[in-house]
Amino acid sequence: MATSTSTSTPSRRLRSAEVSKVRFDSGFWADRQRVNREATLPIQYFQCKTTGRIDALKLEWKQGDPNPPHIFWESDVAKWIEAAAYSLAAHKDPSLESLVDQVVDLLAGAQQPDGYLNVHYTVVNPGKRWTNLRDCHELYCAGHLIEAAVAYDEATGKGKLLGVMCKYVDYIATLFGPGEGRKRGYCGHEEIELALVKLARWTKQQKYMDLARYFVDERGATPHYFDIEAVARGETVKPGHYGNHAYCQAHKPVREQGEVVGHAVRAMYLYTAMADLAGEIGDAGLLKACHALWDDLVNHKLYITGGIGPSAHNEGFTTAFDLPNESAYAETCAAIGLVFWAQRLAQVEPDSRYTDVLETCLYNGTISGVSLDGKKFFYVNPLESRGKHHRQEWFGCACCPPNISRMIGAVGEQVYATGKDSLYVHLYAQTTAELMVGETAVRVEQRTEYPWDGKVTLKLGLAAPAPPVRFTLALRIPGWCRSAKLRVNGRAVALKGKVKNGYAHVKAKWADGDVVQLDLAMPVERVEARPEVRMDAGRVALRRGPMIYCLEQVDNGGALNEVSLPRKAKLTAKFEPRLLGGVCVIEGKAERRSGPKWGGELYRAAASRPRAVKIRAVPYFAWDNRAAGEMMVWVREG
Amino acid sequence: MATSTSTSTPSRRLRSAEVSKVRFDSGFWADRQRVNREATLPIQYFQCKTTGRIDALKLEWKQGDPNPPHIFWESDVAKWIEAAAYSLAAHKDPSLESLVDQVVDLLAGAQQPDGYLNVHYTVVNPGKRWTNLRDCHELYCAGHLIEAAVAYDEATGKGKLLGVMCKYVDYIATLFGPGEGRKRGYCGHEEIELALVKLARWTKQQKYMDLARYFVDERGATPHYFDIEAVARGETVKPGHYGNHAYCQAHKPVREQGEVVGHAVRAMYLYTAMADLAGEIGDAGLLKACHALWDDLVNHKLYITGGIGPSAHNEGFTTAFDLPNESAYAETCAAIGLVFWAQRLAQVEPDSRYTDVLETCLYNGTISGVSLDGKKFFYVNPLESRGKHHRQEWFGCACCPPNISRMIGAVGEQVYATGKDSLYVHLYAQTTAELMVGETAVRVEQRTEYPWDGKVTLKLGLAAPAPPVRFTLALRIPGWCRSAKLRVNGRAVALKGKVKNGYAHVKAKWADGDVVQLDLAMPVERVEARPEVRMDAGRVALRRGPMIYCLEQVDNGGALNEVSLPRKAKLTAKFEPRLLGGVCVIEGKAERRSGPKWGGELYRAAASRPRAVKIRAVPYFAWDNRAAGEMMVWVREG
Repeated sequence: MATSTSTSTPSRRLRSAEVSKVRFDSGFWADRQRVNREATLPIQYFQCKTTGRIDALKLEWKQGDPNPPHIFWESDVAKWIEAAAYSLAAHKDPSLESLVDQVVDLLAGAQQPDGYLNVHYTVVNPGKRWTNLRDCHELYCAGHLIEAAVAYDEATGKGKLLGVMCKYVDYIATLFGPGEGRKRGYCGHEEIELALVKLARWTKQQKYMDLARYFVDERGATPHYFDIEAVARGETVKPGHYGNHAYCQAHKPVREQGEVVGHAVRAMYLYTAMADLAGEIGDAGLLKACHALWDDLVNHKLYITGGIGPSAHNEGFTTAFDLPNESAYAETCAAIGLVFWAQRLAQVEPDSRYTDVLETCLYNGTISGVSLDGKKFFYVNPLESRGKHHRQEWFGCACCPPNISRMIGAVGEQVYATGKDSLYVHLYAQTTAELMVGETAVRVEQRTEYPWDGKVTLKLGLAAPAPPVRFTLALRIPGWCRSAKLRVNGRAVALKGKVKNGYAHVKAKWADGDVVQLDLAMPVERVEARPEVRMDAGRVALRRGPMIYCLEQVDNGGALNEVSLPRKAKLTAKFEPRLLGGVCVIEGKAERRSGPKWGGELYRAAASRPRAVKIRAVPYFAWDNRAAGEMMVWVREG
Repeated sequence: MATSTSTSTPSRRLRSAEVSKVRFDSGFWADRQRVNREATLPIQYFQCKTTGRIDALKLEWKQGDPNPPHIFWESDVAKWIEAAAYSLAAHKDPSLESLVDQVVDLLAGAQQPDGYLNVHYTVVNPGKRWTNLRDCHELYCAGHLIEAAVAYDEATGKGKLLGVMCKYVDYIATLFGPGEGRKRGYCGHEEIELALVKLARWTKQQKYMDLARYFVDERGATPHYFDIEAVARGETVKPGHYGNHAYCQAHKPVREQGEVVGHAVRAMYLYTAMADLAGEIGDAGLLKACHALWDDLVNHKLYITGGIGPSAHNEGFTTAFDLPNESAYAETCAAIGLVFWAQRLAQVEPDSRYTDVLETCLYNGTISGVSLDGKKFFYVNPLESRGKHHRQEWFGCACCPPNISRMIGAVGEQVYATGKDSLYVHLYAQTTAELMVGETAVRVEQRTEYPWDGKVTLKLGLAAPAPPVRFTLALRIPGWCRSAKLRVNGRAVALKGKVKNGYAHVKAKWADGDVVQLDLAMPVERVEARPEVRMDAGRVALRRGPMIYCLEQVDNGGALNEVSLPRKAKLTAKFEPRLLGGVCVIEGKAERRSGPKWGGELYRAAASRPRAVKIRAVPYFAWDNRAAGEMMVWVREG
């Protein structure tokens, strides 16, 4: 769908499932969560520990010491705590919990009497708090700590970190806002806004929602706060970071924004908060801005993998249709941020326009960020590689590893959402979930081999003595699916007329033991990009279900750009249980440019002709897990 | 040819024709020279004047004044003088000559008593002479002034500037060299080396050759001069400009260099001097280095247009086969520098390996740098454009406009070269030339429609009473030519066995009035790049004779990447006398991706099919002279 429509007064119509209430028994996401738990979380703790991020919380660093605590180290620790919390919610682990408790104690100990909590400004730059909101991430770090505190309280019932953070936020609230003597500031890296919404929902305290709203409302107001604080620092006011305030979406008030600009992660976190607030405070202006921004993103600036932000220069957006493949930045965190934004919009407006994108991100541009063994990470996710791009063990700026970890840990909340008389199945995955539809507890057992197969069986469970309950079961018919079949208790149900906003709405009085079967046809499909995306002209990407595929050198030899797919060549899917942890591959006949052997010359009179070859494509997310080599998503056709 | 072979003791076997002795009566280069004379030279004077470059020579600038004279302003003025000199050599113009004389007077007046001549260091930074050879271009400016002085003396017999420059060089020689108390420095931007060779040849003074040799020999020696002078400036020694000394080819001694690196113009000017010196001093080590560098360039780093240096970051070279089309930097000056290097190498080793590249540069990547009306200039010469790249009237860093002007003015010296018993015809062009073969004066009248037609007639003229003279007439058989026919005085002569190093060697006793006819088949040809050039995979470039072609939007509509050439589609050439000043175009049938109308979506299931269209390609050099729009050299095939 290409254009969003506006609504009247928006509200949060759906709530995502609670992380702790969606269990992945086996299958694709169970595998991801197991690796996340067994490999990634310990590695992240080890890295935070050995790089000094955790010990910095002891506030022992002194001038002249090496390795000064960095302005955003807390955010890495916070995301690890949050990821650990999601894991603990699903899977008890006393030793992990004990580790988190120790870190929470350190955080509590690092908090200053007034509530302030940031190591860098406490020991490295004392007296300089809040002097550079644009660049220095203080509120950003607070935001991640808030998310961690809520998640940890929710998972374990341990409220210590939540108490620390409420005290910190209460202090922050005394400093910022329209009241006299307060700074009219907001953070150069958005994050605290969406975190405050979470905090308000969890604590049911309106004051946190009000602070979130203030930060969002104030953004981009004139006179410009980032200029005011720059002058206060003794600087000459000049165009801001990376040339202008658009880098951090502060170039104009958010309700006037309609073009996705600047740093991609910053943008996604802001838009997520805007969608949250639109629903919470019934703000049609915020939702309208989200519509414009969403349309700009998905119609002009979205990689087929769900990656966003093509440019390394600003870690972010450029112009419409500028989607280079080899130089794509497509930061892992940005795709994760898009998952959050899509999730929040779908709570306000249940519509597959959002959840289709969410699914694309989940199966492609986000999880490409972590190796199959959970030990190495991509910060940058190109769609083509000469063979030199590989996952690394860690990064100086280590935002991505713990971000992918918390997303995987919390992926259960993306599968289901419920309203007062509706149960939405956004994603298909082998799960057992406990959900509340209005006041009714509903257990959903979903059995499927998805994403490798489109057959899904849902068995509903209602508490035994309860009478049948009337609600709408809304099943997403994915945008990639050209043919879907539905059966309820074994009886075929025509979908015609039932599909609205991308969901099949099945209204019924549901009883315990009811079985719903959905069969989503999942053939291999070639995808083309619109002509304005010049990099993809004459090329196709291979898609099957939610998965985007790529060619790797290890399967197809080098010089992948020499491969072309004849327009009519048949492509077939095959599940390979021992390959890459078990994936469907796509195989078929293709051609390779072939001709007289080249000497040393760069150019010659064209003498090459196509030669038949076989190709094998693997899911994009799983690339660079075998022998190093070239990779390519968009393959030449014809 | 892919690999160069080494020789024993090199010498300068050929001398290029003198600029004043090659007249372009009509045709392609006559048109270029007329525009250069009538439009470009006056514009350059106007720009030098209005931007302050000329008045700066009055040394009236004072601290606090606006527009301080820049470190390399003299080089722009010098190249204008040099270009004017070549024009005057062929075409008297008293008012232009008077303008030059005024500027020469200003230059003489700006010279300091000790001979020093650089406005910036005289009025803006007095006392700082020679403190930053790496970055500050003093010797570079001196080099361009030397070239101007030689050219102006040669064209007009007016030796005033030559005197000024000899005095300046004599002063420079007291400062630099291995002697005690001298700086062991050399310039961060090569140029003075090749200029000193010119000066030595023109004045027949060995001391200037010795100084050239010193600068070349010292380059890259350790301890590294650029580090020594940096320390002297009070700086911490760190990797040099743009990360290392390779930026200016000073990372190791020149005889050890075998990989083309760094800033492309700097590289070409250095290699030109190396080739010059190899021949002048019989230095096999220098020639061997030139061979390795040449092979690296032409086998790995040369655009099909003769453009070089793909990266804007360093205005120069990256890695082998990295030849992006849209982001190609391919500075006009760099292609001009390659013409110089090829010319000098061909003087030492007459071989079409050099002159083929020289011709490609001349007809494509150099003259693309100036508009057909001579009034606008490209600094950057991409091989593909979205329609936003256009020639400009001038640049803050204005090296390219006067460089293309002097190259066009002196192009006659590229057409012929002579040795003691040989006359080489490197290029085919409508000319009348007066040449010396050994002691014998030979007049050559060349009649041809080249580059649009491959038929060439050469009529030799010897002084009437002279007896026939034995020498070898060496006619280049261009690398692009698959079939050539030769007739001498109307009689067919078999080429078999006569072609060596890319030249047909016709040994004869030549008499006045002898006529030689060459017929070079010039069909349209598709060219392919080797597979390692991934950007060009599945694409072809169109070539006819020395001309590389491109598609422009004005002829073919937008979205040029949607066009593909079926492998067997016929392409025909047609001369269009009223198009772009008269050019051959290439026309034929092609295909365009076509399908259901797109909505707003970025991607869809592949639904497009090829649709037949007609295309027209025009010579690359002439693009962006009509309606602004897209351009593309490498067209998809298949």
